[in-house]
Amino acid sequence: MKNTFGSSVAVTVFGESHGSAVGAVLDGLAPGLFVDEDYIRRKMQQRQARGGISTSRKEADEVKILSGVFNGRTTGTPIALLIENTNVKSGDYDELRRLVRPGHADYAAYCKYHGHQDYRGGGHFSGRVTAALVAAGALCRLALRQRAIELGSHILRCGGVDDRGFADLDADIAALDTAMFPVLDESAGEKMRGAILAARERGDSVGGVLETAVIGLPAGLGEPWFDTVEGLLSHALFSVGGVKGVSFGAGFDFADMCGSAANDPFRMEGGRVVTSSNHNGGINGGITNGMPLLFRCAVKPTPSISVEQQTVDMENGENAVLRVHGRHDPAIVHRARAVVEAVTAITLCDLMAQRYGTDWPQEEV
Amino acid sequence: MKNTFGSSVAVTVFGESHGSAVGAVLDGLAPGLFVDEDYIRRKMQQRQARGGISTSRKEADEVKILSGVFNGRTTGTPIALLIENTNVKSGDYDELRRLVRPGHADYAAYCKYHGHQDYRGGGHFSGRVTAALVAAGALCRLALRQRAIELGSHILRCGGVDDRGFADLDADIAALDTAMFPVLDESAGEKMRGAILAARERGDSVGGVLETAVIGLPAGLGEPWFDTVEGLLSHALFSVGGVKGVSFGAGFDFADMCGSAANDPFRMEGGRVVTSSNHNGGINGGITNGMPLLFRCAVKPTPSISVEQQTVDMENGENAVLRVHGRHDPAIVHRARAVVEAVTAITLCDLMAQRYGTDWPQEEV
Amino acid sequence: MKNTFGSSVAVTVFGESHGSAVGAVLDGLAPGLFVDEDYIRRKMQQRQARGGISTSRKEADEVKILSGVFNGRTTGTPIALLIENTNVKSGDYDELRRLVRPGHADYAAYCKYHGHQDYRGGGHFSGRVTAALVAAGALCRLALRQRAIELGSHILRCGGVDDRGFADLDADIAALDTAMFPVLDESAGEKMRGAILAARERGDSVGGVLETAVIGLPAGLGEPWFDTVEGLLSHALFSVGGVKGVSFGAGFDFADMCGSAANDPFRMEGGRVVTSSNHNGGINGGITNGMPLLFRCAVKPTPSISVEQQTVDMENGENAVLRVHGRHDPAIVHRARAVVEAVTAITLCDLMAQRYGTDWPQEEV
Amino acid sequence: MKNTFGSSVAVTVFGESHGSAVGAVLDGLAPGLFVDEDYIRRKMQQRQARGGISTSRKEADEVKILSGVFNGRTTGTPIALLIENTNVKSGDYDELRRLVRPGHADYAAYCKYHGHQDYRGGGHFSGRVTAALVAAGALCRLALRQRAIELGSHILRCGGVDDRGFADLDADIAALDTAMFPVLDESAGEKMRGAILAARERGDSVGGVLETAVIGLPAGLGEPWFDTVEGLLSHALFSVGGVKGVSFGAGFDFADMCGSAANDPFRMEGGRVVTSSNHNGGINGGITNGMPLLFRCAVKPTPSISVEQQTVDMENGENAVLRVHGRHDPAIVHRARAVVEAVTAITLCDLMAQRYGTDWPQEEV
Repeated sequence: MKNTFGSSVAVTVFGESHGSAVGAVLDGLAPGLFVDEDYIRRKMQQRQARGGISTSRKEADEVKILSGVFNGRTTGTPIALLIENTNVKSGDYDELRRLVRPGHADYAAYCKYHGHQDYRGGGHFSGRVTAALVAAGALCRLALRQRAIELGSHILRCGGVDDRGFADLDADIAALDTAMFPVLDESAGEKMRGAILAARERGDSVGGVLETAVIGLPAGLGEPWFDTVEGLLSHALFSVGGVKGVSFGAGFDFADMCGSAANDPFRMEGGRVVTSSNHNGGINGGITNGMPLLFRCAVKPTPSISVEQQTVDMENGENAVLRVHGRHDPAIVHRARAVVEAVTAITLCDLMAQRYGTDWPQEEV
Repeated sequence: MKNTFGSSVAVTVFGESHGSAVGAVLDGLAPGLFVDEDYIRRKMQQRQARGGISTSRKEADEVKILSGVFNGRTTGTPIALLIENTNVKSGDYDELRRLVRPGHADYAAYCKYHGHQDYRGGGHFSGRVTAALVAAGALCRLALRQRAIELGSHILRCGGVDDRGFADLDADIAALDTAMFPVLDESAGEKMRGAILAARERGDSVGGVLETAVIGLPAGLGEPWFDTVEGLLSHALFSVGGVKGVSFGAGFDFADMCGSAANDPFRMEGGRVVTSSNHNGGINGGITNGMPLLFRCAVKPTPSISVEQQTVDMENGENAVLRVHGRHDPAIVHRARAVVEAVTAITLCDLMAQRYGTDWPQEEV
Repeated sequence: MKNTFGSSVAVTVFGESHGSAVGAVLDGLAPGLFVDEDYIRRKMQQRQARGGISTSRKEADEVKILSGVFNGRTTGTPIALLIENTNVKSGDYDELRRLVRPGHADYAAYCKYHGHQDYRGGGHFSGRVTAALVAAGALCRLALRQRAIELGSHILRCGGVDDRGFADLDADIAALDTAMFPVLDESAGEKMRGAILAARERGDSVGGVLETAVIGLPAGLGEPWFDTVEGLLSHALFSVGGVKGVSFGAGFDFADMCGSAANDPFRMEGGRVVTSSNHNGGINGGITNGMPLLFRCAVKPTPSISVEQQTVDMENGENAVLRVHGRHDPAIVHRARAVVEAVTAITLCDLMAQRYGTDWPQEEV
Repeated sequence: MKNTFGSSVAVTVFGESHGSAVGAVLDGLAPGLFVDEDYIRRKMQQRQARGGISTSRKEADEVKILSGVFNGRTTGTPIALLIENTNVKSGDYDELRRLVRPGHADYAAYCKYHGHQDYRGGGHFSGRVTAALVAAGALCRLALRQRAIELGSHILRCGGVDDRGFADLDADIAALDTAMFPVLDESAGEKMRGAILAARERGDSVGGVLETAVIGLPAGLGEPWFDTVEGLLSHALFSVGGVKGVSFGAGFDFADMCGSAANDPFRMEGGRVVTSSNHNGGINGGITNGMPLLFRCAVKPTPSISVEQQTVDMENGENAVLRVHGRHDPAIVHRARAVVEAVTAITLCDLMAQRYGTDWPQEEV
């Protein structure tokens, strides 16, 4: 299976940027879960991230639930989610058909699909498809929430500006849940937005790092080989547009640590086993240990920039100069956050359902 | 499926550190591939990495091929690889049964398996299991080699010392193929080994970063969503002991780059489309673009250290002090390299077979 | 994954009988395949099988292709197929909610989904969902046709009437391709329709047997264990409404045969290895042998009958009497044929793509 | 994945008839299950079915458990099962290399593996591999037994002789559990053995039908599409040597039934919903309904016969005459029973684990 991910809870995506719709089929969610459409809508808005720092393409992004929900609750059967493309500009795509955009999937897609791919707006590779993932992820977050599993992400770094790290996880995650530009330190956020707008002025773009925390996960999720929590999450996270690095806990900082500093000592606390530090990000040997799950995603600068770039004309096999026009994001990191959280929620629901069965979460049933 | 990875080419692992054997079943390799047992043996030695900087546990690591090879060639049926455990010390494991080791899987495994796990030497979580992966990986590398796909890894950083980066990829990869301590700059390697030995003296351990390059891959491998090349590789790589971060191309450095610097311009070269830079590590939109595949793995310091550590006694639920004795690695990064390369080769064989069919590589057939 | 089937070519279904739509996502079909919408429409009509012998529920069954097709050809990305439910009667479903219908999925669904299932018209278990499968199957048949692989099914037995067996496979399959009531002997078909109408008069229904032939398959498809051609096809075929038995070649008649009669002798014919008989239905050891693939499906009588039946009231746990009203099929075997052919085509495309890669069929590309 | 089957509980097989060993890796069984090695041995003996009616090849079939069991209980990690080939005759296989045996996988394997397959004794296609499946199945039966799920099979028909049908399921299943030649009516068994011996005298073989019953299954197992109970079981059952047909409940007899007779009416019995008849074999809409699961397998006569047969010489592409010598079974149906039960147990464990989670059965834990 190609555009499908998951075992007990699985998601399949489809759609092209300039086709009639994008969508997802989410299968395996327990029956009886209340579907809070307002919550889905709020998560969709966090992906849209309206404002001068995002693309000006305006899509209603209304999520139609075609199946799997009855009387406001999940039935346990596949949930098909459809988001129609309403604001598709029928502009001249002839140049894009011929000139592959640097940093984009255009050339790789051409090789893979022998030129039959829908080249308009990136086709199936477009970030549009993530709208469907965010809708599916919102449903999974509602399922996690029933078991008091919560998650949140902030922009740890963007445009040369650092946010503060997580401190009080409960409070930080609660605050991020409603934030449109997700930072823990608002003044850092202000500077980041300034850097994004400055890049936009130059016709350029900036990258960043997202940091995510998940609280409330039980110990014992994941498998020792291959389907480790890190393996499954990274598998999903690298589908998020622009993510080029994923690390857990101290991540690349482990390179300069000694074992005596890196190991997280165990101790009893209120009758529970906890660790005194959390350098391993809540995972030992690929399995959750009951501590908060912590990871980071490196997000590259949006490849769609308006400065002139060197490329190749696929029609005649000659060098060419490309200047991309149209509606683009000077940064994607703040929007990628919604997708990072969505695929995290989907993956965690799958891990929970694999361990606790198809009726998980059971009380709701 | 839990301890299985792959679609067209898949591997299943089994075994415990102190059980009778570890092993793997590799399924889906094309028929007719010549099985070079010397090559497998050399790759096994790179994982063993004998010498003062590795554990003193001495295992013959003789690979028995139980099936799937006939008259020296693969038959196309499952290849079962068995490595017996011969040097298992029957020491006192009572302490290890009770005291979970910080940084290890012990506590997470206890939660997952409700105390039924084989706790001796990490059981199924042990790095011993990677011996089977390296054997399976060696077979996959032989398959890749027939299509002139080669790969190599070096220790980019360890103990505060940096190796030089890749320069002439063909030459660098050829040199690394036979190196026991894989660095591109021997003087950096000397310093790294010094740092490792110093850590050993302190009863401590050090981490590091591995960098891997793959040349010869065709453009068009991978899928747009989920089964991206990054997603599949990272899924596999996080099974390698101690890997806590995986990044492609510029990875986390993208955070501080602008799109105009990050994008890799296309140009024609000798009738082929190439990119002038390779910040994206040979992958655009999750699909190979025909440029060298480049990625990094962050490896944490070995958690087995001999300094005193705080932990919990699982039997009585009380705080306890642990002092690990026995044969341990003061660094794992140089040994992890063999496993990183093995799971990379397995994953790439799978990607090739998914695209080109089960008879890939076809000429051999 | 639950409502998904296939590896290299995979299909996911969704939808409920009385929801807004049913649909399927077909992933893995090669790029560049010409999408003949007329052909899809004809196959949809064969499933509808209008006329007195089928349900009077009239659905337009217009297939909307939401993605994966561009300029009339497949792109290689997921093809989402949507069929809206337009003729949903908003009648009183209160009785159906409480009284589980004998022979239907109602009670099993209640147990599985704890009462949260959409009980209207069978919900996700409804034969409506097969409309999406037929559309997906039609695309797969177009792909098979490019490699001269053709398939056809006829009603071997229904209402106590036998059709003649396959004789000239090429001619028989060609004739069946356009037949609405698929029999090889029209006079047998006339009698079958008579038996179906007689059952309808009695408020009852009849079962039957379908026989399918596939020509043009290469030798060497399938795997020795588990993913045998028989295993994969039967896995898919048991999803077709009412199928309760699947047999290959001589099937259950093998029970009374001797090995000397059952074995199919090999001989050379025109430079090709063929078998003189085909009791094994084109499969040896789970692998195609290049002879026509032959199998049969037993189809039970439609459970929706209007005679009074004993059942249980799920609300109060008491025995009750049910009399089903509404639009029903007095036989399903003639309509099941379209679905049997569809899932066969999907499974064979998967087997071909697994063996020959994702660009199969390659010339089209 | 090719030689792997299952999701939550999965099995992978390997090995060749004349290689060093056959084996299986069983993954996903809950931790803490007591491993009754005597029970495994008894099930292995049922597959061997010593006596004049089976092959004279004598194998010890000692099952070595290489991993996943610790202190006599499952650990929850992969269980590798190895059965060495000890009685391999090193006879002249040159004829078998060239002359493909009718009814066997030889020719299909040649096409699939391009002549690289191990042709000795059928190689990976050999019934030897089922020894590993039976061992894995025995473990799964122990898991099912803890939840009072029991299963049994008898030879419903063989050599023109019918056994009586199931009557008192509890008693019948208990009796079959220890029977070496599994029939419910011993006098019928006597006649069957007579027919088998008569076929042996003629250098021929006979087929048969197996009927299996499973009691104690909860309602609600299986999925509506594709992963139906029938779909999953048939997928596995067609791997059993010689199985060419699988039917559930009334199976092919449904063809001649009316809906009013075929539907199983529901009624309350002791506070439980039951059906008055069980024509559907315990499955409605692909999902268990809590009634006994009933299915039949058609088993073809063993293709290895000693009478002269027409075939083709693969070396020169000419017609040839084959006379198979050596140790063969004049019937396989009585031995196939052990394998049918094994793959049934594996599949049911998977279905239970998918529904109830990885710790199923939970009390044992």
